[in-house]
Amino acid sequence: MKTDIAARADEPSIRSAILFYNEQKPEAVRWLRKVQALLKARGLRVWMGSPATLRERLPMADIVVAMGGDGTMLRAARLVAPRSVPLLGINTGGLGFLSGTDAQELNRHIGTILEGRFVLEERWMLSVEATRGARKVFGPAIALNDCVIRCGDQARAITLQASCANLFVANYFGDGLILSTPTGSTAYALAAGGPVVDPRLDAFLIAPICPHTLTQRPLILPAKEPVVVTVSRRQPQENPQILISLDGQVGCSLRVGSQVTIRRYEKPLKLLVNPKRSYFQVLRSKLKWGER
Amino acid sequence: MKTDIAARADEPSIRSAILFYNEQKPEAVRWLRKVQALLKARGLRVWMGSPATLRERLPMADIVVAMGGDGTMLRAARLVAPRSVPLLGINTGGLGFLSGTDAQELNRHIGTILEGRFVLEERWMLSVEATRGARKVFGPAIALNDCVIRCGDQARAITLQASCANLFVANYFGDGLILSTPTGSTAYALAAGGPVVDPRLDAFLIAPICPHTLTQRPLILPAKEPVVVTVSRRQPQENPQILISLDGQVGCSLRVGSQVTIRRYEKPLKLLVNPKRSYFQVLRSKLKWGER
Amino acid sequence: MKTDIAARADEPSIRSAILFYNEQKPEAVRWLRKVQALLKARGLRVWMGSPATLRERLPMADIVVAMGGDGTMLRAARLVAPRSVPLLGINTGGLGFLSGTDAQELNRHIGTILEGRFVLEERWMLSVEATRGARKVFGPAIALNDCVIRCGDQARAITLQASCANLFVANYFGDGLILSTPTGSTAYALAAGGPVVDPRLDAFLIAPICPHTLTQRPLILPAKEPVVVTVSRRQPQENPQILISLDGQVGCSLRVGSQVTIRRYEKPLKLLVNPKRSYFQVLRSKLKWGER
Amino acid sequence: MKTDIAARADEPSIRSAILFYNEQKPEAVRWLRKVQALLKARGLRVWMGSPATLRERLPMADIVVAMGGDGTMLRAARLVAPRSVPLLGINTGGLGFLSGTDAQELNRHIGTILEGRFVLEERWMLSVEATRGARKVFGPAIALNDCVIRCGDQARAITLQASCANLFVANYFGDGLILSTPTGSTAYALAAGGPVVDPRLDAFLIAPICPHTLTQRPLILPAKEPVVVTVSRRQPQENPQILISLDGQVGCSLRVGSQVTIRRYEKPLKLLVNPKRSYFQVLRSKLKWGER
Repeated sequence: MKTDIAARADEPSIRSAILFYNEQKPEAVRWLRKVQALLKARGLRVWMGSPATLRERLPMADIVVAMGGDGTMLRAARLVAPRSVPLLGINTGGLGFLSGTDAQELNRHIGTILEGRFVLEERWMLSVEATRGARKVFGPAIALNDCVIRCGDQARAITLQASCANLFVANYFGDGLILSTPTGSTAYALAAGGPVVDPRLDAFLIAPICPHTLTQRPLILPAKEPVVVTVSRRQPQENPQILISLDGQVGCSLRVGSQVTIRRYEKPLKLLVNPKRSYFQVLRSKLKWGER
Repeated sequence: MKTDIAARADEPSIRSAILFYNEQKPEAVRWLRKVQALLKARGLRVWMGSPATLRERLPMADIVVAMGGDGTMLRAARLVAPRSVPLLGINTGGLGFLSGTDAQELNRHIGTILEGRFVLEERWMLSVEATRGARKVFGPAIALNDCVIRCGDQARAITLQASCANLFVANYFGDGLILSTPTGSTAYALAAGGPVVDPRLDAFLIAPICPHTLTQRPLILPAKEPVVVTVSRRQPQENPQILISLDGQVGCSLRVGSQVTIRRYEKPLKLLVNPKRSYFQVLRSKLKWGER
Repeated sequence: MKTDIAARADEPSIRSAILFYNEQKPEAVRWLRKVQALLKARGLRVWMGSPATLRERLPMADIVVAMGGDGTMLRAARLVAPRSVPLLGINTGGLGFLSGTDAQELNRHIGTILEGRFVLEERWMLSVEATRGARKVFGPAIALNDCVIRCGDQARAITLQASCANLFVANYFGDGLILSTPTGSTAYALAAGGPVVDPRLDAFLIAPICPHTLTQRPLILPAKEPVVVTVSRRQPQENPQILISLDGQVGCSLRVGSQVTIRRYEKPLKLLVNPKRSYFQVLRSKLKWGER
Repeated sequence: MKTDIAARADEPSIRSAILFYNEQKPEAVRWLRKVQALLKARGLRVWMGSPATLRERLPMADIVVAMGGDGTMLRAARLVAPRSVPLLGINTGGLGFLSGTDAQELNRHIGTILEGRFVLEERWMLSVEATRGARKVFGPAIALNDCVIRCGDQARAITLQASCANLFVANYFGDGLILSTPTGSTAYALAAGGPVVDPRLDAFLIAPICPHTLTQRPLILPAKEPVVVTVSRRQPQENPQILISLDGQVGCSLRVGSQVTIRRYEKPLKLLVNPKRSYFQVLRSKLKWGER
């Protein structure tokens, strides 16, 4: 699942970049000019990217550089994955599970990155679609971390029925369900009590949110078969309000009877990572495993 | 904390009852006539109680009999507690943590109950009030189980700042907080990973819902001092939507800056319980501790 | 991963069976004659199997039938896997996650089983070996559920250092570690807070037992690379007593400096399962997901 | 529960101190002379305390100063509590939940302490005794944190039957049980999944260790009634090996049929704490609640 991007050409392969950033994060904006200058000094053509320009320039870019935290990375990932453009995250604060480098260390890494000595790691993503009867009510849309189906304002607990490859898995009664990729296992699913899943695994994580059935635990399933979640109710008069959201950023509300189909998206995200920093090192540092 | 109600008079003390039930539960309605007949046959004056008639007749009733599940009991508890009228729950299905007897066994217990050989157990309740600046925005309202402050539709994670007796406790970043009585510890707080707290204890349970800080755990505090929760934000531009609800039944939405004060309510609920069925027996049976 | 055993021959493929049972379980012994008679009536050659006779007769048997609970199945699995003989579990009480049928239902299933209409499901197993310096101190030995490394009598908490494919994963300070197969995820690892892992996944589960570092969570890793656990100490004068055990049945004690290597065993267990009973059905029934 | 020690006399009340330390902790030894000098400079009579001298000098000491981590504090607490001598902990590294001050800050605090402006906080302790039939097999002994009853070398899971005030609570099948004071809730019980219990509460925490019954949760009970734990077995032939330990430091092994009675010890520990550092501040800092 790891390929060396330099292997694709004998010439330096990265000649143009899109800079993608979170305008609402002052730290990201502060780093913007610095990074732009750094890349131009190396001879790259650089575009600054709002989501709109990003979409337009993507066919011409060799790389997208996202500056900010994990929120910015998730937004960028959903934009670049369909076009298979490599993504490099520059962390300007916060957790940064997905970043290839911290902003402070970019200077030290920029050479190795542009010379293709960073590694392209593939992360698989979710493709999500919701229907109600014959009608499509959401998607298809993609997500890098997770698809969350949970109760909205009026509801206290909802019933979700999950099945996998046409086999009934379980009814979950509680706040909702998180359908997560391995990448998303260190995000919201972790807060809901889920395990950490190595991104090399081709597996879904289904984590119930505050399940009333105390014996229901997070469940790890092969990703090759789609998971279908049906919004149900326990009593005929119930009409719970339900929300679906992808990566905590894109979503809508659902009604009883809606069916959400969660599949592995056909194209993986190509993430640039520092080969000298292992996944476990990221875990230890972000989750503070060295301390109590 | 236990008193024998027969001790209050040498005459049979229970002469009139209000029957309170959930009209939407067919099982409760099915039992209604049966229970009414049973009570009348014992010479009691019986009123059928919608919440409105209940409030009107309360000063004249010696007892309120609530038929349904825990939802019906919670509704009844909030109505009877301010007038200190004893409450008997008749479970017609579901969990029934608060019931004195199952509907099927009522026949066997009715004598003991009316002769005052059931026990009055006191359960303390919450009094909740929310202000924003000088303005009251919610309450005061009471709850038997819990006060839940959680993120609404638009928000993914919210910041709540808790303090106790003017001492800062912690900032909680996640789905929200449950402030629970011991009685409520077997309700939503249990689904959120909380412990079981014996109702004889004068203690609050603060249970974070999916906290992003993995070291934050449920916290048990003395109930004699109020807990204050302030709705905060992490960044100036954030304007999260927040919901408050009592016993999952009464609530409203809150804005950043609101302060929720949670106190022990001055009057306890007087709950009729079967002296032959201990609290631990209820736990073992409801939580299926005899099985895996 | 599923193969139809009847496909291996046009003749009925099962002609001889070894009956393996737990002599200490009265229920198993009670069923013994009944099952023996049932199999003989179908024309099978049947041997009764203590572990010793089992080993001797294995090359001649088409199937091993294990009567008892999961403990008996684990014992049988470690015996049959190296010879690739299919295993059928007949549950005579208890949990029975691994059984193909309950004893009460055998009569109904025996035909389908012998005609090859039960399905052979492959379950991967662990191969475990411990060394200290150049000296082998345990194994190689195999396990179907798990390898547990935990503190013994004198120690309260121990330090275990885990690595995977020569990459340092983490130091775990606490009661110990469970290295589990997907099959073992519903056994001890579940009690330690682990998730349920679908047996079709080629993944290890590393579940810390009461870790003092509260942010350490169960971890799911690809099974293709061995996991190495080194028994460490925090201070030079410490000399903790450590125990290793496989499936809770086979084990020894270890000293500081020992290295335990846990690999996927090269031969899978061939388990006979009822194709009409899905893995999820087993989960729902054993973990009582239909109830609270 | 808080009393100002200076209030007991108009003269400075602390004239003599015992210095208690962990000889195996180099950091503690390093601080020893420094602290001794500091106290002598203030005119105090100072004795250096091995456990033996400590016991002998206790009647003459106004205070015991324990240098080290929480292990040293637990050892000192069990020695001083029966004589009601106030205890001051000086943290020389590690967690230090019980310390009044860090070694580095002693200089700044020593004046306030000796002038009686530190606060005496009372922490209640456990008194534990085990019998088998008419014979006493352990104790009575006291503990500040917890009494742990768990499986020893040979056993994988044990059955413990708990009762409270002659009422059967539950059978716990798993690795064992932790009976903890509120003070102990941030120690081993936290690693086993327990909540944090405010030390002002008069409550026991019963936390099961890896219970096989997934619905069994930590349980908070009033401390005024003793908890009795009986070592049981599930099958007649079982003879599990069981260990009991207090504060992880004192213990012995138990056999099936033993009864452990855990009571609130009649004398509280008198702990010197910094009035400017609240319990919540200690939690936030030790459990790193400011970080993820």
